[in-house]
Amino acid sequence: MVNVAVLGFGTVGSGVAEVLTGHEDSIERKADGLIRLKYILDVRDFPDSPFADRFVKDFSVIEQDPEVDIVVETIGGAGVALDFTRRALEAGKSVVTSNKELVATQGYELTQLAREKGVCYLFEASVGGGIPIIRPLSQCLAANEILEIYGILNGTTNYILTRMIRAGLSFDAALREAQEKGYAERDPSADVEGHDACRKICILAAIAFGRHVYPDQVPTQGITEVTLADVDYAESAGKKIKLLGRAIRMEDARVCAYVAPHLVDQADPLAGVEDVFNAISVRGDAIGDVMFYGRGAGKLPTASAVVADVIDAARNMGHRRALFWEPGGQDAVCGADGLASRWYVRAKASTEALRAALPGCKLLARRESGGDEAACLTGRELTRPQLDQLLAGIELRSVIRVLD
Amino acid sequence: MVNVAVLGFGTVGSGVAEVLTGHEDSIERKADGLIRLKYILDVRDFPDSPFADRFVKDFSVIEQDPEVDIVVETIGGAGVALDFTRRALEAGKSVVTSNKELVATQGYELTQLAREKGVCYLFEASVGGGIPIIRPLSQCLAANEILEIYGILNGTTNYILTRMIRAGLSFDAALREAQEKGYAERDPSADVEGHDACRKICILAAIAFGRHVYPDQVPTQGITEVTLADVDYAESAGKKIKLLGRAIRMEDARVCAYVAPHLVDQADPLAGVEDVFNAISVRGDAIGDVMFYGRGAGKLPTASAVVADVIDAARNMGHRRALFWEPGGQDAVCGADGLASRWYVRAKASTEALRAALPGCKLLARRESGGDEAACLTGRELTRPQLDQLLAGIELRSVIRVLD
Repeated sequence: MVNVAVLGFGTVGSGVAEVLTGHEDSIERKADGLIRLKYILDVRDFPDSPFADRFVKDFSVIEQDPEVDIVVETIGGAGVALDFTRRALEAGKSVVTSNKELVATQGYELTQLAREKGVCYLFEASVGGGIPIIRPLSQCLAANEILEIYGILNGTTNYILTRMIRAGLSFDAALREAQEKGYAERDPSADVEGHDACRKICILAAIAFGRHVYPDQVPTQGITEVTLADVDYAESAGKKIKLLGRAIRMEDARVCAYVAPHLVDQADPLAGVEDVFNAISVRGDAIGDVMFYGRGAGKLPTASAVVADVIDAARNMGHRRALFWEPGGQDAVCGADGLASRWYVRAKASTEALRAALPGCKLLARRESGGDEAACLTGRELTRPQLDQLLAGIELRSVIRVLD
Repeated sequence: MVNVAVLGFGTVGSGVAEVLTGHEDSIERKADGLIRLKYILDVRDFPDSPFADRFVKDFSVIEQDPEVDIVVETIGGAGVALDFTRRALEAGKSVVTSNKELVATQGYELTQLAREKGVCYLFEASVGGGIPIIRPLSQCLAANEILEIYGILNGTTNYILTRMIRAGLSFDAALREAQEKGYAERDPSADVEGHDACRKICILAAIAFGRHVYPDQVPTQGITEVTLADVDYAESAGKKIKLLGRAIRMEDARVCAYVAPHLVDQADPLAGVEDVFNAISVRGDAIGDVMFYGRGAGKLPTASAVVADVIDAARNMGHRRALFWEPGGQDAVCGADGLASRWYVRAKASTEALRAALPGCKLLARRESGGDEAACLTGRELTRPQLDQLLAGIELRSVIRVLD
């Protein structure tokens, strides 16, 4: 029998308890043995919970109980969660988490520690909610050199953009709707400013390319400045605006990683990813493009990914090869300035001025084209500094990269 | 060091040799040791191959060499491939294959044998080419009860349907084009009659639901009877025709498995899967819907899936938990007769006659609506026998299930 302790009884933690106990028979079959939820750690009291007898408030009870094999950390953040994760690994317990902030900032240290102790640190649920991506990337695509990984990594912003595109809502109105539906937090900044997507692309980049990429190395732009005018112009060009996290292996072996809105062609499978769904594309030298699609968040999808990691840890107790990567560094990562692409530009300018600045550009029109502005797609690929040089002296309203 | 023998130097086998030797460094890192291609078995001679010194013609050389740990079977079919697979497993060697026919017909026996011998029988490449699906389904979704698995499992037929839909080619013309491009065999029957998709849904069903499903238990209909008229009518209803393999867990725990063309709504992610791409959707009770998308065939994608299995077998030598399922049986599977859905019907009949037979149906029109026929979508869900009863006496030209 394998004993599990869940840290934090919030949305994900309570989902884990529910999935672990609700699927006991089939999990026992798959794990080759019973998995018992022995403790739940939370500072709050839950006297009416069916798990009431399993609650503890002191982590050292779990830390010092030799029967506990696997600790599920769903506290979030990089404070107490880091302390408890370190202590659990030091005590020889495997740790499974959905905590993307902790993996993105401390993943190198924690995977190393797990390796030294011969236990697992698993985090399938930290990216893409229930979508299988960490394991496919590290195992199924192991025969590939990964060239690029990119995707729609945040469901909240994808919902907002979908509502702007399909219902013509402004950003503010779509955000309010997302909050009413429970898709966005009261303080939505981690989502709408791109930080959540940034953490996820850091984790994916580390696994795909083998070195840690820290969130503060990744230029991150959210969707707060995307307007309905941009949505309309994009549509007139057969494209949709999507917030993408991207990590690309450059020729010098550095990783170009960033988060920003992109114009995505409607024929691209990513364009069809709507509402709160996520999708992650991986480009490998042998496989070409593969895409993983599903619900990127939510109690049960995320909990099911956590429990799959628990089953994996349980059935490979003692001999699962740890996920790991090399430490990061300033030499490991570059921003997107050197990455050439086509661009969408909206400016306070005449069409003539825009055409003069960007010869060969494709001018765009929309239903309510304003009198004082013009928009276009550049005809050729440019880096952002090259683009800015060409547009010097023109008052820019939006500049969005085109995904080609 | 782990030694590998490849059986069959055709498209996939030569791709495996190429990937294994071309990525030696990164594979060594991922497998925690060198993987050496020691033998290639083929009846033909390849004097100019860079691997010329590794060819053998007698399987017993491989069988009796205790250095060979992993045998890659890319011969195909269920004849000599079955014999060699049995003998390799009996000799305590792990076997990795891309051979869907063998897994679909003999998978129960071979996984049992592998289990008894403490080795692996792995077949990620047998479904979806390079798309990771077998491992995500068996591991990442382990905390879910799978409710349904379905998808576009054959790239050749998807290419033909795409060309019918987008270029207005007839089935015959699209098939010829697919043959010219090398996407279809000279004898295309295994693809266009649905047998290839049938084998793949059998494998997916066994893993998802835990009992063997045999190809001869699965009603299989291909795309040879799909006409441009059907394509047009479908388009007028906002739908596309796709050949799907489906396996659904019924309330009585039987598996309803079949292969047939379906009308898929254009908003469904499957509708956007074009050309030779494949996509597989899985519905779990916790995760909801997840989809896996990519190239379903081709030398390097398929080879990369084989090599990922080789790496997995190599790094878990001696303690990888085998994939397995229970034997099949007549009680395990039911056809699709009991499965209610909406239907697309095209008949030699007047619109009035069709409306009288199917009250509440939605009549469809197309550019060149013929004088002697009418088409509609049924308004409510019906089983096929119920539909046939309502349409008794009407001359049917096409009946296609709607995926809702």
